[in-house]
Amino acid sequence: MRLRNKPWAAPLIAANPDLISVRPVDMAGKWQAKFSQQQPLYLEVGSGKGQFIIEMAKAHPDRNYIALEIQEVAIAYILRKQVALQLPNLHLVLGDGADLTDYFAPAEVAGLFLNFSDPWPKSRHEKRRLTYRHFLQQYQAIMAPNGILQFKTDNQGLFEFSLVSMNNYGMVFDLVALDLHHDPRVTDNIETEYEHKFSSQGGRIYELVARFPQA
Amino acid sequence: MRLRNKPWAAPLIAANPDLISVRPVDMAGKWQAKFSQQQPLYLEVGSGKGQFIIEMAKAHPDRNYIALEIQEVAIAYILRKQVALQLPNLHLVLGDGADLTDYFAPAEVAGLFLNFSDPWPKSRHEKRRLTYRHFLQQYQAIMAPNGILQFKTDNQGLFEFSLVSMNNYGMVFDLVALDLHHDPRVTDNIETEYEHKFSSQGGRIYELVARFPQA
Repeated sequence: MRLRNKPWAAPLIAANPDLISVRPVDMAGKWQAKFSQQQPLYLEVGSGKGQFIIEMAKAHPDRNYIALEIQEVAIAYILRKQVALQLPNLHLVLGDGADLTDYFAPAEVAGLFLNFSDPWPKSRHEKRRLTYRHFLQQYQAIMAPNGILQFKTDNQGLFEFSLVSMNNYGMVFDLVALDLHHDPRVTDNIETEYEHKFSSQGGRIYELVARFPQA
Repeated sequence: MRLRNKPWAAPLIAANPDLISVRPVDMAGKWQAKFSQQQPLYLEVGSGKGQFIIEMAKAHPDRNYIALEIQEVAIAYILRKQVALQLPNLHLVLGDGADLTDYFAPAEVAGLFLNFSDPWPKSRHEKRRLTYRHFLQQYQAIMAPNGILQFKTDNQGLFEFSLVSMNNYGMVFDLVALDLHHDPRVTDNIETEYEHKFSSQGGRIYELVARFPQA
């Protein structure tokens, strides 16, 4: 979702270099230095306004979280919340999900979240979908052994594509939920802003949790 | 679905040994002899009243089809139709889907259909689901290299289970359809009786097409 630009966004980012990284290529292999404790690092690719990653960071103080977002104004919304919250296990990154192997060292990430990524419904755009094999290769390159990829979407076509793409890549499925919000197996779901709105209107949410094959 | 018994079922079966096999263990490796032409053999496990397999046999005269059904009265309904139709590429079998490796030789089957199998929703019954790994092993044992398994269900829980089970088994997904009857990619779907009724009431049909890994 493209957000309207805000004049306060760039100055807020410039004023908080401890809370947000804008040159993530310099940090590859060194992200733990951004947190008060060394603990497993989880990454959300495309954090939007950050409701999901903030709630995750609150719910799991024993994990470190990075919110990656390409839109300056979106990450600025997260930053505004983090300036108030000062969560010690959350760090923000302004960057591109297509450049993950430039931003992270091999095995630096313990788990990765993709929430409501752009579905790119046209076939000629399928390479842009964040579950296309080229992206999966990048996730695998930065993920620790047995690292988890958790993928949520409301888009049926993207979910169908992703099931096939991740399967064909050799990933091992742990959970498939075809109606996440009515699934008795899932009791700890944390919603994104979009997810909450879409679901409260009766929409169906899909989730896939999968691991990369062991080397 | 359990059908009410019919007094005409057993006599009809006894009277048509050319059209239906009731001792399939005797036929392992020799099924092609039951057909007028030697051509790839496709098997439906649990054919019900046979609408699907009869329409398939009509649509693909270049393939041989076997309808396997454990209920005598159900297979007798199919037989009644086949007595009238005399399709040269359809043969019926009264038998148990749990005994496939007794009925078929290795690689004798080119493709296998599972349509609206019993979902066995309770966890303690999951080993009875026809996509449990024990059954997948049997399918693989009788399937030719690159043989296709096509699975349809209206049961969300069974579909979720099956996606994980087939993925974990190492099967390669060719197609996932989360709403088969509104899927623009699928133009040649042939319905079962149950599917037609369920779908016409607005129910959602799921389909997975997958292959076993190459040895």
